Amino acid sequence: MRSKRGELTRKGEGGELALVNTIRRLANHSGSGRLRLGIGDDCALLGFKEGEEVAITTDLSISGRHFRPEWHPPEAVGHRAIARGLSDIAAMGAHPVAAFLSLGVPQLLTVARKGRDSWVDRFLSGLLALAEAHHTPLAGGDLAESPLAIADIVLLGAVPRNKALLRSGARPRDRIFVTGSLGGSAAGLALLAERGARASRAAMNSRDGDSSLTRHLWPQPRIAQGMWLVRRHAATAAIDLSDGLSTDLHHLCTESGVSATIDAAALPIHPQATLMQALHGGEDYELLFTAKATQNIPRSIAGVAVTQIGTITKKVSGAPSVTLISETGIARPLLPRGWQHFS
Amino acid sequence: MRSKRGELTRKGEGGELALVNTIRRLANHSGSGRLRLGIGDDCALLGFKEGEEVAITTDLSISGRHFRPEWHPPEAVGHRAIARGLSDIAAMGAHPVAAFLSLGVPQLLTVARKGRDSWVDRFLSGLLALAEAHHTPLAGGDLAESPLAIADIVLLGAVPRNKALLRSGARPRDRIFVTGSLGGSAAGLALLAERGARASRAAMNSRDGDSSLTRHLWPQPRIAQGMWLVRRHAATAAIDLSDGLSTDLHHLCTESGVSATIDAAALPIHPQATLMQALHGGEDYELLFTAKATQNIPRSIAGVAVTQIGTITKKVSGAPSVTLISETGIARPLLPRGWQHFS
Repeated sequence: MRSKRGELTRKGEGGELALVNTIRRLANHSGSGRLRLGIGDDCALLGFKEGEEVAITTDLSISGRHFRPEWHPPEAVGHRAIARGLSDIAAMGAHPVAAFLSLGVPQLLTVARKGRDSWVDRFLSGLLALAEAHHTPLAGGDLAESPLAIADIVLLGAVPRNKALLRSGARPRDRIFVTGSLGGSAAGLALLAERGARASRAAMNSRDGDSSLTRHLWPQPRIAQGMWLVRRHAATAAIDLSDGLSTDLHHLCTESGVSATIDAAALPIHPQATLMQALHGGEDYELLFTAKATQNIPRSIAGVAVTQIGTITKKVSGAPSVTLISETGIARPLLPRGWQHFS
Repeated sequence: MRSKRGELTRKGEGGELALVNTIRRLANHSGSGRLRLGIGDDCALLGFKEGEEVAITTDLSISGRHFRPEWHPPEAVGHRAIARGLSDIAAMGAHPVAAFLSLGVPQLLTVARKGRDSWVDRFLSGLLALAEAHHTPLAGGDLAESPLAIADIVLLGAVPRNKALLRSGARPRDRIFVTGSLGGSAAGLALLAERGARASRAAMNSRDGDSSLTRHLWPQPRIAQGMWLVRRHAATAAIDLSDGLSTDLHHLCTESGVSATIDAAALPIHPQATLMQALHGGEDYELLFTAKATQNIPRSIAGVAVTQIGTITKKVSGAPSVTLISETGIARPLLPRGWQHFS
């Protein structure tokens, strides 16, 4: 019933002290010139460079809602939690500077069992591995006991002033692009639902492949691609594909005051995914961006394929905001059928 | 099972759309020159001034752990959630620049009942009122359905470079001060436990008083006092009293590598609190700070009393880090008996 301090709380005794000391040691490991003061005070302190803006995002992961303990290995839960935040940073064209973790877990999940690390240790190892891959120190957070596991991840990034990629910059005749492939994560989730833990154990052994399970459990935020777009002034707008193409493109159109037409035949559908999964499945964490018709966009950026999937059009009152041209050439409204909250 | 965007998610229909539109409208209301882009994109964007450092803290509030729905009015839950973050900002001597809220709630709590606003509306009204009092816009966050109510508050503040108040700066012979009074919040909590909802309804009508209930339900973060200390270079170290004097002073001593002696007769105990509540009760959100013996410290700062309660001493191996001199002049070790997590 009483409050906790702003930092990852150190404990007076036992396994929690060890846990937080582990976090502190690991967190101080990966360097960032902007981190002036990390875990251990009331706040962390960051210094940004002149001419930089600070991008901030928070993402909540709740057991049973964003992951299922019986399907998702703890390492993947940690990886996916921070991937969501990193992907938001990528969608602004920023580079990540520091992460913060507020973690609520049942006591039982902090205890090692049968010679295996505890759930929390494995969660942190997945989270910190992806943080380290992106040179992002864990700079603070909060820790509490909770009846169910919840993790709120905060990411701070830096981007040159007035250069961030916004959702609101798309204009008629801009071309629409996506990175990578679509629907893989939804196909992987369907596989998990079908085969459960057996499938996820298999995926633990194939982190680097491109199977749908790998796409679902170990998504790769497109940081380098977002930064490339900012450096080259190549994009007019961007959003990350977290809720599903139909929903996220709808958001981009709303914020830009435009409509869009998508060509089903052009979609880079993941080999194990269906068209429906590519259109409405979420959690691919690819970038969707728009570019002027005159802008040269290469076929790949920093090693990831880039595909034109459609065109921005003028908004017409009463007309659907997104239209899909089917493989047989029929135009139909594409309603936002991706992830809806409280649904 | 799918992810959510970095911003406070807008809904396609119904009460949630209204809720998030309310947040967006209110959030854009209170101005801050540093907020360049608020709710509605993948990230918020903030611009800081040259020579400023960014202070960041996150604080998790979990139903049944940090508050009890049957004791705490929703407005007070929201107020207390953001007060914790603001108090961490105050303890660095920073001023708050923006707040972010990750909120997980059961669907039922988003619904208005019997002519009253929903729990979430009332929670937000308490949170936003305190944010507005400190000119702090709500700049983003995340929203999800959750089996139990949880709120993670992120606060960003600005402080002149190398001027932040740290826990690690206290030196032997420094004097130890606290703002305001101690133990009031713990006494208020004891009253709630005894009288329950009846007491909390009474407190709703006396927000501005200094009763223990008011101290517990509507704590006032000491932003102006922390900023004063930075402006005057008056403090060598600081921490906010969230876990209780005995525990928080212990943290400060550990980080500074010193010991401390406290004088029981000097403690500004809240009129309705006991000595034990003043020593070990948490959530007073007063500032504890140290200052050189030669530094002039006034009896009040920005309208809040300041009291010397003891002195920093040299750390002696094997000796207790904090010693309490009782009213009868007996010295005893003061162990950290404030809030412990996972206890």
